[in-house]
Amino acid sequence: MKKRELAIVKIGGEIVNDEQTKNLFLESFNALPGAKILVHGGGKQASEIAGKMGIESKLVNGRRITDAANLDIALMVYGGLLNKKLVAELQASGCAAIGLSGADGNAILASKRPPEPVDFGFAGDIEKVNTDLLKLLLEGGLTPVMCALSHDGKGQMLNTNADTIASETAIAMTSYYNTQLYYVFDKPGVLTDMNDANSIVTELSEASYREMVATNQIKDGMIPKLDNGYHALKHQVGLVQLGNTNMLTDSQHPATRIRL
Amino acid sequence: MKKRELAIVKIGGEIVNDEQTKNLFLESFNALPGAKILVHGGGKQASEIAGKMGIESKLVNGRRITDAANLDIALMVYGGLLNKKLVAELQASGCAAIGLSGADGNAILASKRPPEPVDFGFAGDIEKVNTDLLKLLLEGGLTPVMCALSHDGKGQMLNTNADTIASETAIAMTSYYNTQLYYVFDKPGVLTDMNDANSIVTELSEASYREMVATNQIKDGMIPKLDNGYHALKHQVGLVQLGNTNMLTDSQHPATRIRL
Repeated sequence: MKKRELAIVKIGGEIVNDEQTKNLFLESFNALPGAKILVHGGGKQASEIAGKMGIESKLVNGRRITDAANLDIALMVYGGLLNKKLVAELQASGCAAIGLSGADGNAILASKRPPEPVDFGFAGDIEKVNTDLLKLLLEGGLTPVMCALSHDGKGQMLNTNADTIASETAIAMTSYYNTQLYYVFDKPGVLTDMNDANSIVTELSEASYREMVATNQIKDGMIPKLDNGYHALKHQVGLVQLGNTNMLTDSQHPATRIRL
Repeated sequence: MKKRELAIVKIGGEIVNDEQTKNLFLESFNALPGAKILVHGGGKQASEIAGKMGIESKLVNGRRITDAANLDIALMVYGGLLNKKLVAELQASGCAAIGLSGADGNAILASKRPPEPVDFGFAGDIEKVNTDLLKLLLEGGLTPVMCALSHDGKGQMLNTNADTIASETAIAMTSYYNTQLYYVFDKPGVLTDMNDANSIVTELSEASYREMVATNQIKDGMIPKLDNGYHALKHQVGLVQLGNTNMLTDSQHPATRIRL
């Protein structure tokens, strides 16, 4: 029997934090036909709330350390503030959204990252995506909205990169669906010149990607998206595409499609 | 066909805020056989976080006003921090918990309370409990964990009393289940002398209740529980009982059962 289609769409903080950008995105996401899952991050707002509460963000080599206080911030901002607002807004436009952290229905089981060589604190590496839960919800007509939180199955919540949650979910769900993975952000795709939208790379092979990283043309937040994207392609995900909101509703809109 | 049993258990902040009390409760809740729903409040922790962020709690006649800043606190603390920790802890003990705000799957649709005579801000009065959603989750083997948040279906989250969410859920679910409603708190039941656990009223008729309110023997937080409890009894809920955690697992343990 032919598998049904499932779109997994990941949005970053730059979409969530700006009202106008967010509303445009939600409209487009809502217009996507068929089964779909939204995955969101939201780093900026977490830093703002942490700042107001006098909690310091801790970084080692530019990477965030999740101590107990910062985990509470993640629970509050990702799991509460952002997730519930996104769900309420999707519901308003007729999308039967249901918010999930990785603990909810055991959606994302993870293990705490080993403290060597760097102790990232309450950071979770994904062990298992609960495909039966997601299938139950999707077949019930619901649209899961997942935030950047997992749990260890022993009562501990963990912080997990939303790019990785999106790719691992896309991979796991291939057992039931043909999955497509979309990384939506504030650029039309991978650009060779960050300041020129016309410099978009519409097809990016893994070899070219590695070269562009080596020459510093691709850096920062693009790397986890692309690493996760190629990983997904190697594990039966049918399509991985990066770009702005417009690519969701207009298949002719420029975007970066990656290939092995 | 005989309807299945469903227990709706509501816990207040005094259970959630103390680790030992919470763990004892979760163990007992987990031991309850059959279909069940947990509803939680969490006022104290919300006030603490609001304080840390320099956000004032606003009260009129002792009742909390939910302005935009305090609604964000409710989303963060009820929907995020407390809900996700409870869910993770239940998952650890083998209970397939799934957290829900009223927006998730349109679980609790409400309307913003009219601003006259007192403007309570973003306070929601329940319009409809989504029984099909709860039935889908329960039949999927899941245990919904609901927090004190609803939404208006137009994109706005709202603050809604957890005692009322519990009773309205118990009432709505009578269409599919025989429902029992339990209010769990830090006393063994309704006491005629607050400082004497032996002064428990094991059966409380509505007439006696009204008298005890008139003579100030019952006051404060007991009133919404009991008002909601009698309302539930009038709408086909089979059992309404108030007491501490022990009543869940020991049917001989003293508790207050209310009757019309």
